[in-house]
Amino acid sequence: MRMRIQKTFEALFALEEIRELFRTSLPTGFDLEEEAAFHRQIAELRTIVADLEAGTGSPRVAKIAGTIDLRTREEQFINIQPIQAAGRLTVEARKALISYGDGYSTCDACRKPFRLDKISKPGIAEFHEDLAKFVNMDQARVVPGARRGFQAVTGTLVEKGDSVIVSALAHYTEFLAVENAGGIVREVPLNENNIVTADATAQKIEKVEWETGKLPALMMIDHFDYQFANEHDIAGIGKVARQYDIPFLYNGAYTVGIRPVDGKKIGADFVVGSGHKSMASVAPSGVLATTDEWAAKVFRTTAMVGDLTSRMFGIKEVEMLGCTLMGGTLLSMMASFPAVKARTLKWDDEVKNSNYFIDRLLKIAGSKVLSEYPRKHTLTKVDTTGSFDTVARTHKRRGFYFSDELSSRGIVGEFAGATRTWKLNTYGLNERKIRYLADAFAEIAEKYEIPVAP
Amino acid sequence: MRMRIQKTFEALFALEEIRELFRTSLPTGFDLEEEAAFHRQIAELRTIVADLEAGTGSPRVAKIAGTIDLRTREEQFINIQPIQAAGRLTVEARKALISYGDGYSTCDACRKPFRLDKISKPGIAEFHEDLAKFVNMDQARVVPGARRGFQAVTGTLVEKGDSVIVSALAHYTEFLAVENAGGIVREVPLNENNIVTADATAQKIEKVEWETGKLPALMMIDHFDYQFANEHDIAGIGKVARQYDIPFLYNGAYTVGIRPVDGKKIGADFVVGSGHKSMASVAPSGVLATTDEWAAKVFRTTAMVGDLTSRMFGIKEVEMLGCTLMGGTLLSMMASFPAVKARTLKWDDEVKNSNYFIDRLLKIAGSKVLSEYPRKHTLTKVDTTGSFDTVARTHKRRGFYFSDELSSRGIVGEFAGATRTWKLNTYGLNERKIRYLADAFAEIAEKYEIPVAP
Repeated sequence: MRMRIQKTFEALFALEEIRELFRTSLPTGFDLEEEAAFHRQIAELRTIVADLEAGTGSPRVAKIAGTIDLRTREEQFINIQPIQAAGRLTVEARKALISYGDGYSTCDACRKPFRLDKISKPGIAEFHEDLAKFVNMDQARVVPGARRGFQAVTGTLVEKGDSVIVSALAHYTEFLAVENAGGIVREVPLNENNIVTADATAQKIEKVEWETGKLPALMMIDHFDYQFANEHDIAGIGKVARQYDIPFLYNGAYTVGIRPVDGKKIGADFVVGSGHKSMASVAPSGVLATTDEWAAKVFRTTAMVGDLTSRMFGIKEVEMLGCTLMGGTLLSMMASFPAVKARTLKWDDEVKNSNYFIDRLLKIAGSKVLSEYPRKHTLTKVDTTGSFDTVARTHKRRGFYFSDELSSRGIVGEFAGATRTWKLNTYGLNERKIRYLADAFAEIAEKYEIPVAP
Repeated sequence: MRMRIQKTFEALFALEEIRELFRTSLPTGFDLEEEAAFHRQIAELRTIVADLEAGTGSPRVAKIAGTIDLRTREEQFINIQPIQAAGRLTVEARKALISYGDGYSTCDACRKPFRLDKISKPGIAEFHEDLAKFVNMDQARVVPGARRGFQAVTGTLVEKGDSVIVSALAHYTEFLAVENAGGIVREVPLNENNIVTADATAQKIEKVEWETGKLPALMMIDHFDYQFANEHDIAGIGKVARQYDIPFLYNGAYTVGIRPVDGKKIGADFVVGSGHKSMASVAPSGVLATTDEWAAKVFRTTAMVGDLTSRMFGIKEVEMLGCTLMGGTLLSMMASFPAVKARTLKWDDEVKNSNYFIDRLLKIAGSKVLSEYPRKHTLTKVDTTGSFDTVARTHKRRGFYFSDELSSRGIVGEFAGATRTWKLNTYGLNERKIRYLADAFAEIAEKYEIPVAP
């Protein structure tokens, strides 16, 4: 298996070398020398393909650019890393990336008014419309990561000293986006089940108003948080936002691209999603969608005039800093998009798989789930202090014994050495892999004589 | 030629389909069905490779993800598009991208303190050190485009109403970065040769101080501007910055990655470069480098504390919003970097090629160069109003006749339909291509009976 994977990369790389021949030759075609080099390289490619089929040969390529290892994690292993699962590229995204990797590849047919989201070849303009519809908002822009979406909103709405409501499980990028704008985060407490409720949000708003004499400038709440991936009462919170008339940013880093999101139904003024986290796209990428009303503000165009030249760059958007994802990042989003739209409709199956695995884990004596249960998400925080950690305490490899056992079964992505509380994500694993994964955990438990219920 | 290029892409795509088999199968290997599918796909690949070698067959792949055309611009044509030339990926970058395209691909071995520039596998930490050295500064961070580097600096240094010195040829992203921070651009006038001088800069500073009672908060000057790619007196301007003690941002979007840049010698406090414009990297990418003194400010870490949880995310940098380029963008920069470093040492050859082409263009009667001449850069603004435009005036295709003539000779990247003033870039074209390009322009002139001097 390993050699076949190695040879797949080598064949891809050999083709990139062949491609480079076209790039360095004249448009009129190869000269004799180039033609000879071409046939030599094709012969090499054939040898690699023969090895690829047979699984024979030895590695020819060790490093990229002399220093970078091949990354074969997704080919060789089942990867349960908490943040990587839904950012894995689709096959179409990988093709798009091969084709559109070059720097400003999106700009071949850029015409007036010279803005990324207006380009129609490739269909970037249409993609922007589709993106807005996808989360049921009026307008959307692609951004270099969800965090840059937060930044655009805080940069627009938050003045120095303003309060911003976030959850007690808010992601650090929300803290930074608020800090960057000069604001102050005010956290909504969790209930006993680690859930942010509408009531708690309303109370926090009241408290902020009481203490500062001013309503918060913005609310940013994660539908599912990054710690437990618990589902928070986002619709109820949306209603609270309406009641107090506070702009509401829906953080969909863990939803947009994997499950349906309806921004208007939620009552969101802004919907932010992450391309590399949940939309099978190259980093950094993401989406910021909003209503027509807010678009005028958050997507405001430049008003700056050169004092000497009177130059103006009228259509460029200040918070976007003009164009955002001018190449492979955007094309990977676009190429994955049909598959991403389709997969959000199969979210129930993903949740079912997640619960299947967690149920099996819970059969291993002493294991606990720290996230809400039954699971409503594929990301889960588990506590194996009472199970796998009991072995780590006396094992010479400590917690790493567990990583060793997993990787010997072709599983990676756990936090190496951690056997107490840790996170995993089953997103995108097919049923067969889920079963394999659960079996592997049970096998390891049995090997170390941790009881496993039938 | 075209069919061979088509088949190169088809072979790459077929390999991505094969790769997907590994991704969906169990780590234990293929089952019988998968093994059969694998052999079928290998057989298909062999057919494609046979067609690739012979240049036979018909296209099998029309669109990526059903809607996206193959982009074969760099394989089929000589591309003289002004901003694309130096962002074209190296072959190693394309390999890295194949390997590291997946979302958070950089994060496999992310350990405490959990920040992108601290990761040592792949060698991201070392790359950051190399990047800083490359432009002779103390510290560097990768950013999602040069514009995000400007933004980090204006966000740190510019308060509402502050003046920022820019050039009368400043790029629009500098305007936006200043506007975003609430500042006001103050343009330095050009001299009669469209050059920004140290004297003019000093005078503008004096004028701003006189008018506002305050020194500008920042100076941002392009070494070579985006309009003419004229070289401005960046070292003299650096001295002026020292004299007035104004922080100085060197905009190297058109230098870092193609010619040597020595930030300290220039007297820069900040050096900004663009990955997708000049470092053979995927967009959006770039670099922000600075001195140790300024690093403490522009790379300041978060001070925000959760009011309820007392959470702090100590090492995360506010202006970077934490991690920046967590995947393929960064890996493309890293993989191109050895070639990029090497090519900056061959800048003189590039300039020689640029002048060779411009000299040949000037032999075509009525042609002018609007940029400084002899050229010191590969990007040039030309004026063909007196040559190629004389034909356009009566041609039924108007200016598009010129595009037609170029593309029939395998040349693209001119602004379609433009025959008066327009920009082109010869960066990266080898001598043979440069000669071919110059010949093509002469041929077109001769075809339309525009005199060409010997």
